[in-house]
Amino acid sequence: MGDIVEVFLAFSTYATIVVLKMMLMSPMTGYFRITRKAFANQEDTSLASSTEDKKKLVRVDPDVERVRRCHQNDLENIIPFVVIGLLYTLTGPDLSTALLHFRVFVGSRLFHTVAYVLPLPQPSRAVAFLIGLVTTSSMASRVLITALYL
Amino acid sequence: MGDIVEVFLAFSTYATIVVLKMMLMSPMTGYFRITRKAFANQEDTSLASSTEDKKKLVRVDPDVERVRRCHQNDLENIIPFVVIGLLYTLTGPDLSTALLHFRVFVGSRLFHTVAYVLPLPQPSRAVAFLIGLVTTSSMASRVLITALYL
Amino acid sequence: MGDIVEVFLAFSTYATIVVLKMMLMSPMTGYFRITRKAFANQEDTSLASSTEDKKKLVRVDPDVERVRRCHQNDLENIIPFVVIGLLYTLTGPDLSTALLHFRVFVGSRLFHTVAYVLPLPQPSRAVAFLIGLVTTSSMASRVLITALYL
Repeated sequence: MGDIVEVFLAFSTYATIVVLKMMLMSPMTGYFRITRKAFANQEDTSLASSTEDKKKLVRVDPDVERVRRCHQNDLENIIPFVVIGLLYTLTGPDLSTALLHFRVFVGSRLFHTVAYVLPLPQPSRAVAFLIGLVTTSSMASRVLITALYL
Repeated sequence: MGDIVEVFLAFSTYATIVVLKMMLMSPMTGYFRITRKAFANQEDTSLASSTEDKKKLVRVDPDVERVRRCHQNDLENIIPFVVIGLLYTLTGPDLSTALLHFRVFVGSRLFHTVAYVLPLPQPSRAVAFLIGLVTTSSMASRVLITALYL
Repeated sequence: MGDIVEVFLAFSTYATIVVLKMMLMSPMTGYFRITRKAFANQEDTSLASSTEDKKKLVRVDPDVERVRRCHQNDLENIIPFVVIGLLYTLTGPDLSTALLHFRVFVGSRLFHTVAYVLPLPQPSRAVAFLIGLVTTSSMASRVLITALYL
């Protein structure tokens, strides 16, 4: 249990990094909306242009949708990691085991974003997704084994 | 306050179970995408078929969309439960009251998924959703009453 | 470090308020779905009408979609605030600095919802979004400076 402070500092660092990465998807979506001139709301079209026919700018663009799907996949995977990771940290795992989980998860999600946005050929994105899912599940299994109270 | 360790163990257990349930929606979406041959990305079509016309496989399927809406509803309800539930746990509630909240919430969300995916006739899904909302709101009211600091 | 209990109480209060605000988007979506008669599922149409042609009620309505985009933006911004804000609280910031962060964030998100749903002319919503993003990033930078452990 002497490791728990260091595990918590490591969790704080990696959780903050991967949540900041997720937050970056919002400005990236904004960048694609402005450069592709594809907006979700009528009032937003003034952000891009004052001359063009504004009704035509409320439209769906494949590049914008790709970034949005990547953002959604982050929400579906990074938030479970943060929740399960905090509970896992409090179970007092070995520092080296905990660091392995945190680094593999964050690495897999950074690669997932690259694989989604470029995009890279499959199965690169599918593998990155699965590695993240297995890492979070591994931490969840320790939480349930250590703390089970139904 | 002697209950707080047991309440925390119970919270950890139920939060982990319901977050794992939410994470299962991703593989379920993948299963429906492959069996229905309905993908969101051009590069994903290679996961299902090497012979068919791949452009036709980038399409929207009603069964896939149903699972995705269920997943989205989980994000909108389970994550607030986890956040509010953690703060509620730290207010030192009675163990039996806390267990009631956790069990009712997790039960309502398990039933919600069944009601959404099958689907069951309304208002079964609406009732499951509302029970979860009321449970989280009840915990939130205790947090605000106990910890209010504006 | 004498402030940490008060910072934690303030965090609990503001996090609960802003998560409750996010949860209110679900009933608001339901209200618009019923009044606009625009549903996502065939089985939901029985909630609004027993006489009309039910297939026509499974449709997309611009007012419903606007509320749903607002809800999605909340998920993308309020959940990172809660995660980063909890870690920030544990770094032991000054009470006044912490309160400034929490109040600015929650205020910006309340205004964001008003600006999105009415809607107000841009750039009001974009400014509200950016203020929230900067506030969370400021807390994240303190977490990384205080707790960095790679």
